[in-house]
Amino acid sequence: MFNKVLIANRGEIAVRIIRACRELGIETVAVYSEADREALHKELADEAICIGPAKAADSYLDMQSVISAAIVTGAEAIHPGFGFLAENSTFAEMCEECQLKFIGPRAETIKEMGNKINARRLMIKAGVPVIPGSDGAIDSVEEALEIAHRIGFPVMLKAAAGGGGKGIRKIEAAEKLPQQFQSAQQEAIAAFGNGEMYIEKIIYPARHIEVQILGDGHGQVIHLGERDCSLQRNNQKVLEESPAVGLTEQLRSAIGDAAVRAAQAVGYENAGTIEFLMDEQQQFYFMEMNTRIQVEHPVTEMVTGVDIVREQLRIAYGQPLTYTQEDIQLKGHAIECRINAENPKFNFAPCPGTIENLLLPSGGMGLRVDSAVYGGYTIPPYYDSMIAKIIVCGDTREAAIGKMERALVELVTDGIVTNQEFQMDLITHESFVKGQYDTAFLQEKFLPNWEPELD
Amino acid sequence: MFNKVLIANRGEIAVRIIRACRELGIETVAVYSEADREALHKELADEAICIGPAKAADSYLDMQSVISAAIVTGAEAIHPGFGFLAENSTFAEMCEECQLKFIGPRAETIKEMGNKINARRLMIKAGVPVIPGSDGAIDSVEEALEIAHRIGFPVMLKAAAGGGGKGIRKIEAAEKLPQQFQSAQQEAIAAFGNGEMYIEKIIYPARHIEVQILGDGHGQVIHLGERDCSLQRNNQKVLEESPAVGLTEQLRSAIGDAAVRAAQAVGYENAGTIEFLMDEQQQFYFMEMNTRIQVEHPVTEMVTGVDIVREQLRIAYGQPLTYTQEDIQLKGHAIECRINAENPKFNFAPCPGTIENLLLPSGGMGLRVDSAVYGGYTIPPYYDSMIAKIIVCGDTREAAIGKMERALVELVTDGIVTNQEFQMDLITHESFVKGQYDTAFLQEKFLPNWEPELD
Repeated sequence: MFNKVLIANRGEIAVRIIRACRELGIETVAVYSEADREALHKELADEAICIGPAKAADSYLDMQSVISAAIVTGAEAIHPGFGFLAENSTFAEMCEECQLKFIGPRAETIKEMGNKINARRLMIKAGVPVIPGSDGAIDSVEEALEIAHRIGFPVMLKAAAGGGGKGIRKIEAAEKLPQQFQSAQQEAIAAFGNGEMYIEKIIYPARHIEVQILGDGHGQVIHLGERDCSLQRNNQKVLEESPAVGLTEQLRSAIGDAAVRAAQAVGYENAGTIEFLMDEQQQFYFMEMNTRIQVEHPVTEMVTGVDIVREQLRIAYGQPLTYTQEDIQLKGHAIECRINAENPKFNFAPCPGTIENLLLPSGGMGLRVDSAVYGGYTIPPYYDSMIAKIIVCGDTREAAIGKMERALVELVTDGIVTNQEFQMDLITHESFVKGQYDTAFLQEKFLPNWEPELD
Repeated sequence: MFNKVLIANRGEIAVRIIRACRELGIETVAVYSEADREALHKELADEAICIGPAKAADSYLDMQSVISAAIVTGAEAIHPGFGFLAENSTFAEMCEECQLKFIGPRAETIKEMGNKINARRLMIKAGVPVIPGSDGAIDSVEEALEIAHRIGFPVMLKAAAGGGGKGIRKIEAAEKLPQQFQSAQQEAIAAFGNGEMYIEKIIYPARHIEVQILGDGHGQVIHLGERDCSLQRNNQKVLEESPAVGLTEQLRSAIGDAAVRAAQAVGYENAGTIEFLMDEQQQFYFMEMNTRIQVEHPVTEMVTGVDIVREQLRIAYGQPLTYTQEDIQLKGHAIECRINAENPKFNFAPCPGTIENLLLPSGGMGLRVDSAVYGGYTIPPYYDSMIAKIIVCGDTREAAIGKMERALVELVTDGIVTNQEFQMDLITHESFVKGQYDTAFLQEKFLPNWEPELD
C-alpha cells in the first residue's frame, strides 16, 4: 500500500480521506490555506503544509503549490476529494508527470467525460440511453432550431465544456433561441475557451437517480446500487437516499447495468458516479458522469458495507477488487442530510461564524456524522457552507427516517445558523415520508409552503 | 408501541436508550440525581425528573423515587439499563405491581438466575455444561472439603446470592478451607441475608466467551453470536470483540445452542447474556446469566445489524421477533474499547474533572462512539468512570484494529486523564493483534510489562 498520501482538499471530505488512510496505515499530508489554520483536517493529518491565502484560487486550486507540497513531503499519491481539482484533467496529468499517483480515473477519462458532447457520443455508442437532443456539436442557430423543433420546446442549450451553471440556457420558445445561443456561446468561450454547444430535451420534473460504480483497472467494473438525489435547490443536492423508492428489481438492475456499461465504455478506473434522470414513465437517461468521490457516497456505504474511500486507495495502488457484482447486496435503507451553515429563512444565505457549543448526534445504532467542525471552531467564509453530513441507516425507510428525526432533534450548533429546522421539516413532510418527490418538489412544492418557526 | 418510557439510568446507556426510544417515536423521561443536572441524558430526554442527591443509594437506587417519577409522568414502562436496578427482582416486581412494564425479563427469571446455585441446577437440567463443583448448597465444611478434593484445589467458594465480589474466596489448599468457609458465609449473610454457599473449580486462565440472546416471549429464543470479553482487570471488562477469534463454526454453533437452551430453560423474555468460560481444550462452561442489556452490546449490533435496544422495547411491548436464527449472520469483525476517566499509571484511579476540549473520533465508515459527554462537561465523581465506548467494525479483524487505532489517535479529551494510551498499547500489542489472549493476559502479561510514555 502507499506509505504516504497527500489530501488536496479541506473540510469533512479531507477528514474522511485522512481517516481512511490512517485505517490502512498510510501516512497523510494535509494542505491548508491561511484561513484554515484551525481546520480539523490540518490537525488530524500527520503533516500539514500551508499552500497559500484564503482564496481557493490561491491555495486549494493552485496546482503547482499542491504538487510541490506532495514532492516536498515525499507523498506518493494525491487524493483530490471532490470540488477544487478533483475533475481537472490538467491536474491529473501534472500528477502523472511528477510520478504522483492521482487517486481517481486516468486524466484521459476525466477529459473524455468532462466534454459533455463527447460523453453523450460515448454513451450512445455503449448503448446507454441519453437525453434526446443533438448528436454532436451544433454548428449554427439554424441547426439548433431544427433540433429544438424536433425534440420540442422547452429545451436546454448547454456548453460542451460546461460546469458551474456557465454557458447553459433554458429556451422556452423558438424566437428566444437565436439570441440565447449567441450569449451562451460567448459565455462558454469566455469561461472555458470552448464554444461548442449542444441541445437536450428538458426532463422535468424527473427523478435524479445516480449509480455508484467502482472499476479496478483489472477488467472488473461493478456498481454499488443507486441513490435518489432528487431533492435539490439551485442544482445543489440537499438530501440523498439509497435505495431509491419504488424501483422494481428489474428497473434497478437495468439502471445498474447501464451504469456499468457507461463506465466500461471509457475503461473506467477508480470510483465514479453515473447520473441519470428518470421521467414519470420510468425511462432513464444518462445525464453526466462524475469522475470522483461524491458528497453523498456514505449512503451507499451504509447499505452495501463497502468503504468507498478505502476502495479508491486500494484501486489506485493497483489492487483488484476482492468481490464481484453478485457479492453486492443492498441491505436496509440509508438517508443523508447535509447540514449547512446557512439561513433558509433568508434565501439560504451562508452564515459562517463560531460554533460555541457543539453536540453531534453520533452514537447509537446505524448513525454516522461526517464532519470537520468542533466546539469553538470558527467557520471561515471562503468555502462551501456544508459543515456536516448526518447519515442514518435502518432496516426500513421508516426506521431510517426515525433515526434522522432523532439526530436532527439532538444536533446542537450554538453560535451559528444552520438548515437544521429546514431538514427536519423536509424529512417529516408527508410527501417525503411517502417517497413521493422529484426534482421539482423542493423548490416548487415544499419551499413555497414552508412555514419555519419564528425565531 | 409504548407512548412514553422512563429510563432509570444515567450516562451513555441512558443516552443510548433515549435515542432508541426517540427513533421509534416513543417519548422519554429521564431521572437524574442532583449531581447530574448537567448530564446529557437529562438534556436529551423529553422530560426529566430529579430523584435525589448524588449518592446512588439516594437516587438511582431509590426504587420508590424511580417508580413515583414514572407514575407522575405517565410513563408506561421503565428501562433499567445496566447496573443500578437492572438485576433487582424486587424492583421488577414493584414495576409489575404498579402496572409499569419492566423492560427486561420477568421478575421471577431475574430471581431464578440471580441465585447462582439455582442457576447451576437449572443449567444442568437443561444440558448446559457447568463448571465442575457442588450440586447444590453446601451444608458443612466437611462437605465442602470432600467436593474440593474431588474437583481438585484451588477451588472457588462462592455465595449463592453473590455479586460485587462479596462472599467469594479463592481456596488454595485444604487447610485454608474451614476458616475461609466461615468468613465467606458470614460476609454473605451480612451482605445478602443469605448464607448459602457453593464451590466451583477454578478455570484459569480461560477465555470469557459470552453469547447475546433474545427471547420474545412468543416461543422464539435466538442468539446473536458470541463476544470475547477475556480482557479484564479486577473482573472489569476493558475491551470486547465479536466474533471470538479462533472458534470453529462447529464450536461457535455449539456455544450458541447451549446459550439458547439456557435461555429456554427459564422461558427467557427480552435481551440477556449467557457468560461462559472456555478452557484451553475449548471446553466451555456456564458461568452466569446477565438478565439485562450489557455495556458491550454494540459489538454484537455491529456484526449482526440487529438493534438490541430497539428489540428490547419491541419485545417488552409484546411484539414477536420478525426473524429467525437462520437470518442472523455475523458479518465483519467488531471491537469495543471502553474509555474511562481513570489514570492507568496510578493504579487506574478514577480521574473525574472537566472536559475542556472534546473531539470524539466519530465519522467515517464502521465507527461508532456511544458517549454521554460533551465539551465543557464536568464528570461527577460519584459514578462509574466510563465516559465513552468506541466501537469499530471492519470486514476483517485487521481492518477493525486499524479503525480502532485511528479512533484512539484522534480522540481528544483535554482536561481529564483517561485510559486512551493504555487502550492504544493494548490493541497494538503483538498478542492482541494475533488474537492470543485469555483472562490472565491483561493482568499477568500485559500490565507488568507495560511502559507508558512519561507525561
